[in-house]
Amino acid sequence: MSMAEQKKILCVGLVCLDIINVVDKYPEEDSDSRCLSQRWQRGGNASNSCTVLSLLGAPCAFMGSLAAGLTADFILEDFQVFCIDVSLVSKHAQCVPPASVVISNISTGSRTILHMNRNLPDVTLEDFSKVNLHQFKWMHWEGRNAEEQVKMIQQVEQYNSTLPQQERITVSVEIEKTREPLYQLFPYGDVVFVSKDVASYFGYESAEAAVRGFYSRVKKGAILICAWAEKGADALGPDGVHVHSDAFPPEKLVDTLGAGDTFNAGVIFMLSNGKSLQEALTFGCKIAGKKCGFHGYDGIVEKTST
Amino acid sequence: MSMAEQKKILCVGLVCLDIINVVDKYPEEDSDSRCLSQRWQRGGNASNSCTVLSLLGAPCAFMGSLAAGLTADFILEDFQVFCIDVSLVSKHAQCVPPASVVISNISTGSRTILHMNRNLPDVTLEDFSKVNLHQFKWMHWEGRNAEEQVKMIQQVEQYNSTLPQQERITVSVEIEKTREPLYQLFPYGDVVFVSKDVASYFGYESAEAAVRGFYSRVKKGAILICAWAEKGADALGPDGVHVHSDAFPPEKLVDTLGAGDTFNAGVIFMLSNGKSLQEALTFGCKIAGKKCGFHGYDGIVEKTST
Repeated sequence: MSMAEQKKILCVGLVCLDIINVVDKYPEEDSDSRCLSQRWQRGGNASNSCTVLSLLGAPCAFMGSLAAGLTADFILEDFQVFCIDVSLVSKHAQCVPPASVVISNISTGSRTILHMNRNLPDVTLEDFSKVNLHQFKWMHWEGRNAEEQVKMIQQVEQYNSTLPQQERITVSVEIEKTREPLYQLFPYGDVVFVSKDVASYFGYESAEAAVRGFYSRVKKGAILICAWAEKGADALGPDGVHVHSDAFPPEKLVDTLGAGDTFNAGVIFMLSNGKSLQEALTFGCKIAGKKCGFHGYDGIVEKTST
Repeated sequence: MSMAEQKKILCVGLVCLDIINVVDKYPEEDSDSRCLSQRWQRGGNASNSCTVLSLLGAPCAFMGSLAAGLTADFILEDFQVFCIDVSLVSKHAQCVPPASVVISNISTGSRTILHMNRNLPDVTLEDFSKVNLHQFKWMHWEGRNAEEQVKMIQQVEQYNSTLPQQERITVSVEIEKTREPLYQLFPYGDVVFVSKDVASYFGYESAEAAVRGFYSRVKKGAILICAWAEKGADALGPDGVHVHSDAFPPEKLVDTLGAGDTFNAGVIFMLSNGKSLQEALTFGCKIAGKKCGFHGYDGIVEKTST
């Protein structure tokens, strides 16, 4: 195993607690009902992607902030279960342990999400400056405090410029939410994930239209990827190479929460291991599809052939 | 202080974790929204009544079951904050820490409750048989596993029959839910609380109609009480004494969660201190009304004059 292969993948972004309530009928306002089941799950895009990367066998680390208290213990324990490095997690004292409530309706497949009002600071340039970059081969940013994230990525670019090509850190960014400031991240990723939500907001009606339309925003040589739920995913690479993969839906749709994060992790895993864009895209679709066939992430590897 | 005054009040019933999400618009199905605030609160009728009794200065104990794990720690810690005796709490090992989700809409005042699927055993006769009855002057049962609860109350009746009147344990029961088996509790309380829900289900259109209609079900000499939200509460005592208290609504309705449990605690507190039924009922309405003017229970005493 070469040095590069032993290096880790870092995911920067959100971790939170998801309290998932499974119902067979969406509750009417002011009613009093019983859910079929309830489970607590570590959530957050970057945190979910770490879970999948780790299950795939890639050493990885999570960087983000965490409120001190009850849920922090749950979350840290769960990171540990999945062997995810949390040495870059910053804890913030806070009275109320926040959680996102998810109402998952098995009759319609809908998921209604009630986010906590999360008054935790995002990772700053100052936090990031303390990171020993040598230990990483890939860094993935979940778009949040984009202005600050751009500065962090510029530090990585600075670091990369001192190194030969094969030792450089690959940077990926995810633009998932339709928030203007996030769009400044387009030119900063070697790999850019843009969501169906953002693409639709811009008027694109397919993944292919989206990657072609947005491609002028990414930097030279970058890969732009857009997943489109049951329509699969499309990517546009350097020199205008267009790649598509169909979706691989499970026999029965059970749990779509985190499917996008699973897709991203699958693609990053393959590309970081030198696979082609087509291989990476197909694998991302396969693993995301499989994930939708069961709750959570356990066993995702056994159930997905590369 | 006499021996009787030092004796404790026991509340038998439910404790759970309420995760309260404050919104200004009830979430549409399949949407993704942010709540204004979120708080975690120890909940459950008997548990809430203990909180209020303790704040009023009555030594009290809670008896119920608790899942081991994350939320158990939160709940036990909170019981401790309120100086509630938890030596009769039985812990049950269980993987998922359950919680009730409450969506509290400040625009309409509605509260939508999604109960956990709580597969914890209720307190049994066997558990109860181990309790040293001498330490209690009052025992309150939140109607749940009624058949078993009847057997526990019969043990108290047995115990009482060996003692002079002034040393006996007073028994109160709460019939809140419209569940057939709970109605067998009517003849087992010296004080019986029946809810507006149950009364409405039986076709009664006022608290007075309810206490008059249900009175034939209670035992000789018992007090039957029914609170009716903003209409106040009515009670029927021995010898047909009818008593009413208006409600005392707060200037601004902030939080009605646990108002009924607060009312019960206020009434029990006053009656257990030898106050008249009218005094107890008025105090119950006052303290419940005040409680609706702020979140949680802290400061309920400073804010209520007896």
